[in-house]
Amino acid sequence: MKKSFGAKPIVHPTPTWVVCTYDADGKANGMTAAYGGICCGDPPCLTVSLRKATYSHGCIVSRKAYTVNVLSESHVAEVDYFGIASGRNEDKFAVSGLTPVRSELVDAPYIAEAPLVVECKLAHTFELGLHTQFVGEIVDVKADEQVLGDDGYPDMRKVKPIIYAPSCRAYLGIGSYLEPAYKVGKKLRD
Amino acid sequence: MKKSFGAKPIVHPTPTWVVCTYDADGKANGMTAAYGGICCGDPPCLTVSLRKATYSHGCIVSRKAYTVNVLSESHVAEVDYFGIASGRNEDKFAVSGLTPVRSELVDAPYIAEAPLVVECKLAHTFELGLHTQFVGEIVDVKADEQVLGDDGYPDMRKVKPIIYAPSCRAYLGIGSYLEPAYKVGKKLRD
Repeated sequence: MKKSFGAKPIVHPTPTWVVCTYDADGKANGMTAAYGGICCGDPPCLTVSLRKATYSHGCIVSRKAYTVNVLSESHVAEVDYFGIASGRNEDKFAVSGLTPVRSELVDAPYIAEAPLVVECKLAHTFELGLHTQFVGEIVDVKADEQVLGDDGYPDMRKVKPIIYAPSCRAYLGIGSYLEPAYKVGKKLRD
Repeated sequence: MKKSFGAKPIVHPTPTWVVCTYDADGKANGMTAAYGGICCGDPPCLTVSLRKATYSHGCIVSRKAYTVNVLSESHVAEVDYFGIASGRNEDKFAVSGLTPVRSELVDAPYIAEAPLVVECKLAHTFELGLHTQFVGEIVDVKADEQVLGDDGYPDMRKVKPIIYAPSCRAYLGIGSYLEPAYKVGKKLRD
Protein backbone atom coordinates (compact mmCIF):
# COMPACT_ATOMS: atom_id res chain seq x y z
CA MET A 1 0.00 0.00 0.00
CA LYS A 2 1.46 3.31 -1.09
CA LYS A 3 1.11 6.46 0.94
CA SER A 4 0.27 9.73 -0.88
CA PHE A 5 2.28 12.87 -0.26
CA GLY A 6 0.40 15.17 -2.60
CA ALA A 7 1.92 17.53 -5.16
CA LYS A 8 5.47 17.94 -3.88
CA PRO A 9 8.83 18.18 -5.64
CA ILE A 10 10.05 14.87 -4.23
CA VAL A 11 11.92 12.30 -6.29
CA HIS A 12 15.19 10.40 -5.90
CA PRO A 13 17.97 11.04 -6.66
CA THR A 14 18.70 14.72 -7.22
CA PRO A 15 22.16 16.24 -7.71
CA THR A 16 23.97 18.98 -5.81
CA TRP A 17 25.43 21.04 -8.60
CA VAL A 18 27.20 24.29 -7.89
CA VAL A 19 26.10 26.66 -10.66
CA CYS A 20 28.73 29.36 -11.17
CA THR A 21 28.37 32.77 -12.80
CA TYR A 22 29.85 36.27 -12.88
CA ASP A 23 27.79 39.13 -11.52
CA ALA A 24 27.56 42.62 -13.06
CA ASP A 25 30.82 43.62 -11.35
CA GLY A 26 32.65 40.55 -12.58
CA LYS A 27 32.64 38.92 -9.15
CA ALA A 28 32.61 35.13 -9.32
CA ASN A 29 29.57 33.61 -7.64
CA GLY A 30 27.97 30.23 -7.31
CA MET A 31 24.92 28.55 -5.87
CA THR A 32 24.03 24.96 -5.19
CA ALA A 33 21.09 23.63 -7.14
CA ALA A 34 19.30 20.30 -6.83
CA TYR A 35 16.81 21.07 -9.57
CA GLY A 36 18.41 20.12 -12.84
CA GLY A 37 19.51 17.40 -15.20
CA ILE A 38 20.70 16.59 -18.69
CA CYS A 39 17.92 17.52 -21.10
CA CYS A 40 19.20 16.89 -24.62
CA GLY A 41 21.81 14.67 -26.23
CA ASP A 42 22.32 16.66 -29.46
CA PRO A 43 23.04 19.48 -29.03
CA PRO A 44 24.14 18.35 -25.58
CA CYS A 45 22.21 20.45 -23.07
CA LEU A 46 21.89 20.59 -19.33
CA THR A 47 19.18 22.36 -17.37
CA VAL A 48 19.18 24.07 -13.99
CA SER A 49 16.19 25.73 -12.38
CA LEU A 50 16.67 28.73 -10.11
CA ARG A 51 14.24 30.94 -8.24
CA LYS A 52 14.01 34.47 -9.60
CA ALA A 53 14.91 35.78 -6.13
CA THR A 54 18.39 34.28 -6.26
CA TYR A 55 21.40 36.42 -7.09
CA SER A 56 22.58 33.81 -9.59
CA HIS A 57 19.34 34.13 -11.57
CA GLY A 58 20.16 37.68 -12.64
CA CYS A 59 23.75 36.71 -13.39
CA ILE A 60 22.67 33.99 -15.83
CA VAL A 61 20.16 36.30 -17.48
CA SER A 62 22.77 39.01 -18.07
CA ARG A 63 25.85 36.87 -18.81
CA LYS A 64 23.99 34.16 -20.75
CA ALA A 65 26.36 31.52 -19.44
CA TYR A 66 27.00 29.32 -16.43
CA THR A 67 29.07 26.35 -15.37
CA VAL A 68 27.91 23.29 -13.44
CA ASN A 69 30.48 22.11 -10.94
CA VAL A 70 30.38 18.64 -9.44
CA LEU A 71 32.22 18.66 -6.13
CA SER A 72 33.26 15.53 -4.26
CA GLU A 73 32.05 14.28 -0.88
CA SER A 74 35.07 15.86 0.78
CA HIS A 75 33.58 19.27 -0.10
CA VAL A 76 30.11 18.65 1.33
CA ALA A 77 30.40 21.63 3.71
CA GLU A 78 31.32 23.93 0.82
CA VAL A 79 28.45 22.60 -1.30
CA ASP A 80 26.03 23.21 1.55
CA TYR A 81 27.40 26.70 2.17
CA PHE A 82 26.96 27.63 -1.51
CA GLY A 83 23.30 26.67 -1.11
CA ILE A 84 22.76 28.63 2.11
CA ALA A 85 24.50 31.95 1.43
CA SER A 86 23.65 34.58 -1.19
CA GLY A 87 26.19 36.20 -3.47
CA ARG A 88 24.27 39.40 -2.96
CA ASN A 89 25.70 39.64 0.57
CA GLU A 90 28.77 37.44 0.62
CA ASP A 91 31.75 36.55 -1.50
CA LYS A 92 31.22 32.81 -1.36
CA PHE A 93 34.55 31.96 -2.94
CA ALA A 94 36.40 34.09 -0.37
CA VAL A 95 34.47 32.56 2.55
CA SER A 96 34.72 28.97 1.34
CA GLY A 97 38.29 29.13 0.10
CA LEU A 98 37.32 27.56 -3.22
CA THR A 99 39.08 28.90 -6.31
CA PRO A 100 37.22 30.45 -9.26
CA VAL A 101 38.82 29.95 -12.66
CA ARG A 102 37.74 32.04 -15.65
CA SER A 103 36.38 29.81 -18.40
CA GLU A 104 38.01 30.38 -21.74
CA LEU A 105 34.87 29.23 -23.52
CA VAL A 106 31.92 30.89 -21.75
CA ASP A 107 31.44 34.05 -19.70
CA ALA A 108 31.43 32.26 -16.34
CA PRO A 109 33.91 30.88 -13.81
CA TYR A 110 34.33 27.26 -12.82
CA ILE A 111 35.67 25.83 -9.57
CA ALA A 112 39.27 24.60 -9.63
CA GLU A 113 38.57 22.09 -6.85
CA ALA A 114 35.63 20.50 -8.70
CA PRO A 115 36.79 17.24 -10.32
CA LEU A 116 34.04 17.50 -12.97
CA VAL A 117 32.99 20.76 -14.62
CA VAL A 118 30.49 21.48 -17.40
CA GLU A 119 30.64 24.82 -19.22
CA CYS A 120 27.35 26.02 -20.71
CA LYS A 121 26.11 28.90 -22.78
CA LEU A 122 22.48 29.82 -22.24
CA ALA A 123 20.28 28.37 -24.98
CA HIS A 124 16.71 28.71 -23.65
CA THR A 125 14.93 30.28 -20.71
CA PHE A 126 11.59 28.84 -19.66
CA GLU A 127 9.44 30.42 -16.96
CA LEU A 128 7.72 27.59 -15.11
CA GLY A 129 6.45 29.31 -11.96
CA LEU A 130 8.55 29.83 -8.84
CA HIS A 131 11.56 28.59 -10.78
CA THR A 132 13.04 29.66 -14.08
CA GLN A 133 14.45 26.80 -16.07
CA PHE A 134 17.71 27.66 -17.81
CA VAL A 135 18.71 25.31 -20.59
CA GLY A 136 22.42 25.55 -21.24
CA GLU A 137 24.12 24.14 -24.28
CA ILE A 138 27.20 22.23 -23.14
CA VAL A 139 30.32 23.72 -24.71
CA ASP A 140 32.84 21.57 -22.86
CA VAL A 141 33.15 19.00 -20.09
CA LYS A 142 36.37 19.08 -18.08
CA ALA A 143 37.59 16.56 -15.54
CA ASP A 144 40.64 16.12 -13.35
CA GLU A 145 43.01 13.39 -14.49
CA GLN A 146 42.73 11.75 -11.06
CA VAL A 147 39.03 10.94 -11.56
CA LEU A 148 39.36 9.29 -14.96
CA GLY A 149 38.68 5.59 -15.27
CA ASP A 150 40.51 2.98 -17.29
CA ASP A 151 38.54 4.04 -20.38
CA GLY A 152 39.77 7.62 -20.02
CA TYR A 153 36.36 9.02 -19.07
CA PRO A 154 35.25 10.42 -15.70
CA ASP A 155 34.53 7.53 -13.32
CA MET A 156 31.71 8.32 -10.91
CA ARG A 157 33.34 6.23 -8.18
CA LYS A 158 36.31 8.59 -8.32
CA VAL A 159 34.33 11.81 -8.79
CA LYS A 160 32.25 10.88 -5.72
CA PRO A 161 29.41 13.35 -6.37
CA ILE A 162 27.09 14.36 -3.56
CA ILE A 163 23.48 13.24 -3.86
CA TYR A 164 20.76 15.39 -2.31
CA ALA A 165 17.67 13.74 -0.89
CA PRO A 166 14.92 16.38 -1.08
CA SER A 167 12.53 14.45 1.13
CA CYS A 168 14.96 14.07 4.02
CA ARG A 169 17.12 17.17 3.59
CA ALA A 170 20.33 15.19 3.65
CA TYR A 171 23.40 14.58 1.53
CA LEU A 172 24.45 11.08 0.63
CA GLY A 173 27.42 9.62 -1.17
CA ILE A 174 27.65 7.32 -4.14
CA GLY A 175 27.52 3.63 -3.35
CA SER A 176 28.85 0.53 -4.93
CA TYR A 177 28.94 -0.54 -8.55
CA LEU A 178 25.81 -2.52 -9.34
CA GLU A 179 25.80 -3.65 -12.96
CA PRO A 180 26.89 -2.57 -16.45
CA ALA A 181 24.22 -0.68 -18.39
CA TYR A 182 22.69 -2.01 -21.62
CA LYS A 183 23.63 -5.55 -20.64
CA VAL A 184 22.16 -6.82 -17.37
CA GLY A 185 18.58 -6.31 -18.61
CA LYS A 186 19.01 -8.61 -21.61
CA LYS A 187 18.76 -11.72 -19.47
CA LEU A 188 15.09 -10.94 -18.77
CA ARG A 189 14.28 -11.91 -22.37
CA ASP A 190 15.69 -15.41 -21.94
CA MET B 1 45.11 20.10 -14.80
CA LYS B 2 41.71 19.32 -16.23
CA LYS B 3 41.23 17.27 -19.36
CA SER B 4 38.64 18.47 -21.91
CA PHE B 5 36.05 16.08 -23.30
CA GLY B 6 34.30 18.51 -25.63
CA ALA B 7 30.55 19.05 -25.93
CA LYS B 8 29.14 15.84 -24.47
CA PRO B 9 26.14 15.14 -22.22
CA ILE B 10 28.30 14.04 -19.30
CA VAL B 11 27.61 15.07 -15.72
CA HIS B 12 27.21 13.22 -12.42
CA PRO B 13 24.88 12.00 -11.06
CA THR B 14 21.95 11.19 -13.33
CA PRO B 15 18.91 9.15 -12.35
CA THR B 16 17.41 6.00 -13.84
CA TRP B 17 13.74 6.82 -13.91
CA VAL B 18 11.24 4.49 -15.52
CA VAL B 19 8.78 6.76 -17.32
CA CYS B 20 5.44 4.99 -17.74
CA THR B 21 2.64 5.70 -20.17
CA TYR B 22 -0.30 4.12 -21.97
CA ASP B 23 -0.12 3.68 -25.72
CA ALA B 24 -3.00 4.23 -28.16
CA ASP B 25 -4.35 0.73 -27.43
CA GLY B 26 -4.21 1.26 -23.68
CA LYS B 27 -1.21 -1.02 -23.26
CA ALA B 28 0.99 -0.04 -20.32
CA ASN B 29 4.52 0.83 -21.36
CA GLY B 30 7.61 2.29 -19.77
CA MET B 31 11.12 3.37 -20.64
CA THR B 32 14.14 4.16 -18.57
CA ALA B 33 15.38 7.73 -18.80
CA ALA B 34 18.51 9.30 -17.38
CA TYR B 35 17.78 12.73 -18.79
CA GLY B 36 15.55 14.49 -16.29
CA GLY B 37 15.20 16.26 -12.99
CA ILE B 38 12.99 18.40 -10.83
CA CYS B 39 12.50 21.71 -12.63
CA CYS B 40 10.11 23.79 -10.52
CA GLY B 41 9.07 23.96 -6.89
CA ASP B 42 5.72 25.71 -7.34
CA PRO B 43 3.89 24.33 -9.19
CA PRO B 44 6.01 21.26 -8.50
CA CYS B 45 7.26 20.03 -11.85
CA LEU B 46 9.56 17.31 -13.07
CA THR B 47 11.11 17.02 -16.50
CA VAL B 48 12.09 14.05 -18.61
CA SER B 49 13.67 14.24 -22.06
CA LEU B 50 12.95 11.55 -24.62
CA ARG B 51 14.04 11.07 -28.22
CA LYS B 52 11.24 11.48 -30.74
CA ALA B 53 12.01 7.99 -32.07
CA THR B 54 10.97 6.33 -28.81
CA TYR B 55 7.57 4.69 -28.47
CA SER B 56 7.03 6.49 -25.17
CA HIS B 57 7.41 9.89 -26.85
CA GLY B 58 4.20 9.43 -28.85
CA CYS B 59 2.41 8.07 -25.80
CA ILE B 60 3.17 11.19 -23.75
CA VAL B 61 2.16 13.47 -26.63
CA SER B 62 -1.22 11.75 -27.01
CA ARG B 63 -2.04 10.95 -23.37
CA LYS B 64 -0.57 14.14 -21.91
CA ALA B 65 0.52 12.30 -18.79
CA TYR B 66 3.29 10.09 -17.45
CA THR B 67 4.58 8.67 -14.20
CA VAL B 68 8.17 8.57 -13.00
CA ASN B 69 8.99 5.35 -11.17
CA VAL B 70 12.02 5.04 -8.92
CA LEU B 71 12.96 1.37 -8.64
CA SER B 72 15.38 0.00 -6.06
CA GLU B 73 18.79 -1.59 -6.65
CA SER B 74 17.19 -5.02 -6.46
CA HIS B 75 15.43 -4.21 -9.74
CA VAL B 76 18.51 -3.09 -11.67
CA ALA B 77 17.99 -5.75 -14.38
CA GLU B 78 14.39 -4.60 -14.92
CA VAL B 79 15.49 -0.94 -15.07
CA ASP B 80 18.10 -1.82 -17.67
CA TYR B 81 15.64 -3.89 -19.67
CA PHE B 82 13.14 -1.00 -19.76
CA GLY B 83 15.93 1.09 -21.28
CA ILE B 84 16.96 -1.49 -23.89
CA ALA B 85 13.62 -2.74 -25.24
CA SER B 86 10.95 -0.79 -27.14
CA GLY B 87 7.25 -0.93 -26.33
CA ARG B 88 6.69 -0.88 -30.07
CA ASN B 89 7.84 -4.50 -30.26
CA GLU B 90 7.54 -5.90 -26.77
CA ASP B 91 5.21 -5.85 -23.79
CA LYS B 92 7.83 -4.82 -21.26
CA PHE B 93 5.61 -5.41 -18.27
CA ALA B 94 4.86 -8.96 -19.43
CA VAL B 95 8.53 -9.73 -20.10
CA SER B 96 9.83 -8.16 -16.89
CA GLY B 97 7.09 -9.37 -14.59
CA LEU B 98 6.60 -5.88 -13.17
CA THR B 99 3.02 -4.86 -12.42
CA PRO B 100 1.35 -1.81 -13.99
CA VAL B 101 -1.24 -0.04 -11.83
CA ARG B 102 -3.67 2.44 -13.39
CA SER B 103 -3.22 5.87 -11.81
CA GLU B 104 -6.44 7.34 -10.47
CA LEU B 105 -5.08 10.84 -11.02
CA VAL B 106 -3.45 10.90 -14.45
CA ASP B 107 -3.87 8.89 -17.67
CA ALA B 108 -0.80 6.72 -17.11
CA PRO B 109 0.18 3.59 -15.20
CA TYR B 110 2.71 3.36 -12.40
CA ILE B 111 4.78 0.37 -11.29
CA ALA B 112 3.52 -1.47 -8.20
CA GLU B 113 7.06 -2.65 -7.35
CA ALA B 114 8.50 0.90 -7.41
CA PRO B 115 8.86 2.17 -3.83
CA LEU B 116 8.62 5.80 -5.02
CA VAL B 117 6.26 6.99 -7.75
CA VAL B 118 5.54 10.46 -9.12
CA GLU B 119 2.38 11.05 -11.16
CA CYS B 120 2.56 13.90 -13.68
CA LYS B 121 0.28 15.61 -16.13
CA LEU B 122 2.00 17.16 -19.13
CA ALA B 123 2.43 20.90 -18.64
CA HIS B 124 4.94 21.94 -21.33
CA THR B 125 6.70 20.40 -24.30
CA PHE B 126 9.98 21.92 -25.42
CA GLU B 127 11.77 20.79 -28.57
CA LEU B 128 15.50 21.01 -27.85
CA GLY B 129 17.02 18.97 -30.68
CA LEU B 130 17.42 15.20 -30.60
CA HIS B 131 15.40 15.16 -27.39
CA THR B 132 12.00 16.57 -26.55
CA GLN B 133 11.78 17.88 -23.02
CA PHE B 134 8.48 17.08 -21.34
CA VAL B 135 7.71 19.14 -18.26
CA GLY B 136 5.17 17.38 -16.10
CA GLU B 137 3.29 18.99 -13.27
CA ILE B 138 3.47 16.69 -10.27
CA VAL B 139 -0.02 15.69 -9.18
CA ASP B 140 0.98 13.25 -6.47
CA VAL B 141 3.99 11.50 -4.98
CA LYS B 142 3.40 8.00 -3.63
CA ALA B 143 5.75 5.87 -1.57
CA ASP B 144 5.67 2.45 0.04
CA GLU B 145 5.35 2.49 3.83
CA GLN B 146 8.53 0.40 4.09
CA VAL B 147 10.71 3.17 2.65
CA LEU B 148 9.51 5.96 4.93
CA GLY B 149 11.93 7.43 7.44
CA ASP B 150 11.28 8.45 11.02
CA ASP B 151 9.88 11.77 9.79
CA GLY B 152 7.30 9.97 7.68
CA TYR B 153 8.86 10.97 4.35
CA PRO B 154 10.61 8.74 1.81
CA ASP B 155 14.13 7.97 3.03
CA MET B 156 16.60 7.62 0.18
CA ARG B 157 18.60 5.02 2.08
CA LYS B 158 15.50 2.82 2.06
CA VAL B 159 14.35 3.67 -1.47
CA LYS B 160 17.86 2.75 -2.73
CA PRO B 161 17.51 4.42 -6.16
CA ILE B 162 19.82 3.41 -8.98
CA ILE B 163 22.26 6.06 -10.18
CA TYR B 164 23.36 6.05 -13.80
CA ALA B 165 26.86 7.16 -14.71
CA PRO B 166 26.64 8.38 -18.32
CA SER B 167 30.40 8.55 -18.78
CA CYS B 168 31.02 4.93 -17.76
CA ARG B 169 27.72 3.27 -18.77
CA ALA B 170 27.24 1.74 -15.37
CA TYR B 171 24.68 1.65 -12.57
CA LEU B 172 25.69 2.50 -9.02
CA GLY B 173 23.89 2.43 -5.73
CA ILE B 174 23.39 5.08 -3.10
CA GLY B 175 26.14 5.37 -0.53
CA SER B 176 26.35 6.45 3.03
CA TYR B 177 24.79 9.43 4.76
CA LEU B 178 27.21 12.35 4.63
CA GLU B 179 25.74 15.39 6.37
CA PRO B 180 22.45 17.19 7.02
CA ALA B 181 21.61 19.87 4.45
CA TYR B 182 21.32 23.57 5.38
CA LYS B 183 23.53 23.02 8.39
CA VAL B 184 27.01 21.67 7.71
CA GLY B 185 27.91 24.65 5.53
CA LYS B 186 27.28 27.20 8.27
CA LYS B 187 30.54 26.39 9.98
CA LEU B 188 32.47 27.88 7.06
CA ARG B 189 31.34 31.33 8.16
CA ASP B 190 32.93 30.90 11.60
